[in-house]
Amino acid sequence: MKVGDYVNQLSQSIVSCRAEDTATTAATLLTTNRIGAMPVCDPERGLIGILSERDLVRAMTGAAGPVSELRVKDLMTSAVITCSPSDSMLGVCKTMINRKIRHVPVVDGNKVRGMVSIRDALAHRLEELELESGVLRDSVIAARHR
Amino acid sequence: MKVGDYVNQLSQSIVSCRAEDTATTAATLLTTNRIGAMPVCDPERGLIGILSERDLVRAMTGAAGPVSELRVKDLMTSAVITCSPSDSMLGVCKTMINRKIRHVPVVDGNKVRGMVSIRDALAHRLEELELESGVLRDSVIAARHR
Repeated sequence: MKVGDYVNQLSQSIVSCRAEDTATTAATLLTTNRIGAMPVCDPERGLIGILSERDLVRAMTGAAGPVSELRVKDLMTSAVITCSPSDSMLGVCKTMINRKIRHVPVVDGNKVRGMVSIRDALAHRLEELELESGVLRDSVIAARHR
Repeated sequence: MKVGDYVNQLSQSIVSCRAEDTATTAATLLTTNRIGAMPVCDPERGLIGILSERDLVRAMTGAAGPVSELRVKDLMTSAVITCSPSDSMLGVCKTMINRKIRHVPVVDGNKVRGMVSIRDALAHRLEELELESGVLRDSVIAARHR
């Protein structure tokens, strides 16, 4: 399955934040929407980073300064690994496992079309493989009884 | 595969915190160990909760009070879904998908033996299924060429 088809099927509403947003605003956006990460978008440049729960938890350790003074731009990851709607779900699954990342924005031109999370991606792949195994198992049984 | 065998294979060091720890201490433990959640343990009662990145991010929204004054006991989830070393990995995978949880402590008596994360669990199940599909595919080919 293509990433684009998968994301359309989920009918996600895309939640994003701005570089100048405060850490508190970002925390509220993630909590309210029950998501683990969101794209950081610039009105002109499009996707400029990704902000995750992990980035916010790191902020709470105090290493980057007092939480109340921190902004998304101080915490986000700028080198974002993205995928395109035409990529395969299997490829994105493997990227997430190999690169140890949990969220990949789906980007089309400079527009964010959705987010693939590792839970969604692996649950999807699991379903596909269970189906494939089922079909193959039936074929083995059928072949034995010919 | 049994959860106990899986956890032994990972040779995890178990990171935990106490109910009286501050939110900052908990954030530092998660960040330093690069983990998404940890068990909250009591010296006498054993496992009394689980604290995740999500719980800490919720704390940053200010809804529970000023972050600096919050303690793990104010933020943790007390109704923890656990598994036992003798449970199957497949069962734990399904529980995590169905209950929408990302971490399950492995508990033996009142001792925490490890943590299963959704990423680890699904990556493991994916590997198992890829292997199974491969074996079945070979059987189909062999059966066709008898």
